[in-house]
Amino acid sequence: MREPALLPLLLTTLEATATVAFALSGLMEAARKRLDAVGVCVVAGLAAFGGGTLRDVLLDRRPFFWVEHAGWLWALLGGCIVAMLLLRRRHFAPTERAMQWPDAVGLGLFSAGGTQLALAQGLPAIVAVLMGVVTAVFGGVLRDIVCNEIPSAFRDHRPYAVCAFAGGWVLVAARSLGLDDSAAVLLAAAATFGLRALALATDYRLPAWTSGSER
Amino acid sequence: MREPALLPLLLTTLEATATVAFALSGLMEAARKRLDAVGVCVVAGLAAFGGGTLRDVLLDRRPFFWVEHAGWLWALLGGCIVAMLLLRRRHFAPTERAMQWPDAVGLGLFSAGGTQLALAQGLPAIVAVLMGVVTAVFGGVLRDIVCNEIPSAFRDHRPYAVCAFAGGWVLVAARSLGLDDSAAVLLAAAATFGLRALALATDYRLPAWTSGSER
Amino acid sequence: MREPALLPLLLTTLEATATVAFALSGLMEAARKRLDAVGVCVVAGLAAFGGGTLRDVLLDRRPFFWVEHAGWLWALLGGCIVAMLLLRRRHFAPTERAMQWPDAVGLGLFSAGGTQLALAQGLPAIVAVLMGVVTAVFGGVLRDIVCNEIPSAFRDHRPYAVCAFAGGWVLVAARSLGLDDSAAVLLAAAATFGLRALALATDYRLPAWTSGSER
Repeated sequence: MREPALLPLLLTTLEATATVAFALSGLMEAARKRLDAVGVCVVAGLAAFGGGTLRDVLLDRRPFFWVEHAGWLWALLGGCIVAMLLLRRRHFAPTERAMQWPDAVGLGLFSAGGTQLALAQGLPAIVAVLMGVVTAVFGGVLRDIVCNEIPSAFRDHRPYAVCAFAGGWVLVAARSLGLDDSAAVLLAAAATFGLRALALATDYRLPAWTSGSER
Repeated sequence: MREPALLPLLLTTLEATATVAFALSGLMEAARKRLDAVGVCVVAGLAAFGGGTLRDVLLDRRPFFWVEHAGWLWALLGGCIVAMLLLRRRHFAPTERAMQWPDAVGLGLFSAGGTQLALAQGLPAIVAVLMGVVTAVFGGVLRDIVCNEIPSAFRDHRPYAVCAFAGGWVLVAARSLGLDDSAAVLLAAAATFGLRALALATDYRLPAWTSGSER
Repeated sequence: MREPALLPLLLTTLEATATVAFALSGLMEAARKRLDAVGVCVVAGLAAFGGGTLRDVLLDRRPFFWVEHAGWLWALLGGCIVAMLLLRRRHFAPTERAMQWPDAVGLGLFSAGGTQLALAQGLPAIVAVLMGVVTAVFGGVLRDIVCNEIPSAFRDHRPYAVCAFAGGWVLVAARSLGLDDSAAVLLAAAATFGLRALALATDYRLPAWTSGSER
């Protein structure tokens, strides 16, 4: 009887790890911008929960994740304070390298989850796929806007949002082929993670639109 | 029996042309900022649909235009890719000049439409007029914020939002004089377009608040 | 029979004064950035009403304050025009010093009001306290984002949001001790105001996270 509980436990663990990776990306960007403790907590929170919250505002869903599971807010505040006490500038680069992988897991899980939620509301496939992208990517977008940067997801020429976009269509296809919802979500998350891992491993760059910026 | 269908067809054509003009403004700003393909599509989409979406979030209306007419999202993605293949930097200035006029049409139609929606919800006239301004102007505002610029609608000293504001009051006045809704919307859109065209033709500038920025 | 009406009258006066202080902060930042009349009105409006509006979007509450009391929008537009005619650059520094105190009053009243609204919806205490912070602080955050600045509330190392955060917990504690709602709100607002006044009087700075920005 232990096996049935293993997958949910694994998923929860993966999601929690990915959320920490997202929050850390905000925390380190806030530190680079020399924000104070309030700014560090807000930017970390936006990076962790901003994408899902924006999706829920667009889909008119309530309660938000962080309202239903308010313990996460305590974890975020506590984690930010601990990080401000322990984390040093020299730890940033290795932390970012280590966080690439849980971040890729989060990209897969959160985008597949967001697409699934939108499909369950009966929205068109293209809208649902974009809602998945919003869920996984726009926390980082809000983080960068508050830090007064052009969002890195829009200018680093690395496949990030496009992996989530492709994975969303895997979800749509899997459902239309009759897979049950959980299997389709896992397959889509794995596809997104795989694409992102491949992009990281090969250091792939999206072709630049040189014509748009020629002098 | 053909005449009754002509006006809707004309309006749809004008709205589609104006939406293309809005999207192109985002596409070219994204190109100037050297965004990647994801950034180009997002910024073009914000410029095209961001104002109406923000209005619908504020008015708590669903579904959004781009959810009800999801074909527009395909058109946007496809159009961005075609533009990235065909459009060159040297085309930007002539494109912007040519787009001023459909942009002015969009300013009129979208602001009048937004004001009409808010009035139909029973909102006060001043709120409805501002919702019209949000509909027509805040797509460009979101475009500029994501591109890390102060919104040009707030600093170029050209009458843009004020034309939509004035046209909104034409709509309120026309309705209170008993005009039917469609005629009032068209009259307001024409008034906004006329004011904007006049401002473009005369190169008019709003008086600067020099006192606020004196040294 | 006059006494019962005195407290509401006093509160309304304090709230109106605080709203003017918030709007003036936006107006002066817009002037420093050389925005035009449209930008000045929008940024002043965001500073005055943006926090409460964002809270209402998150809590899915309608109508917004400025829809229910649309007269405030007229006051805002009129006030901005009068200020642009009368206010000179040399007035900015003394105005900002004078506005610190009504701003601190607003910090207390709006954060306590926002927390109270969220608690009345049955939200968890930590969420409600954060909604109070959003109400009082995020108008200024939106003001700064539109003006292309990192929000000062996130980087000036002065206790501002933390005063509202502490005051929110006073409200939660007072309610759980059985105080009636109005008394608890007033107590929390006074606590927030007192902390902010103390910070202003002693020129207190939050400890910097030097480790985060070390070279």
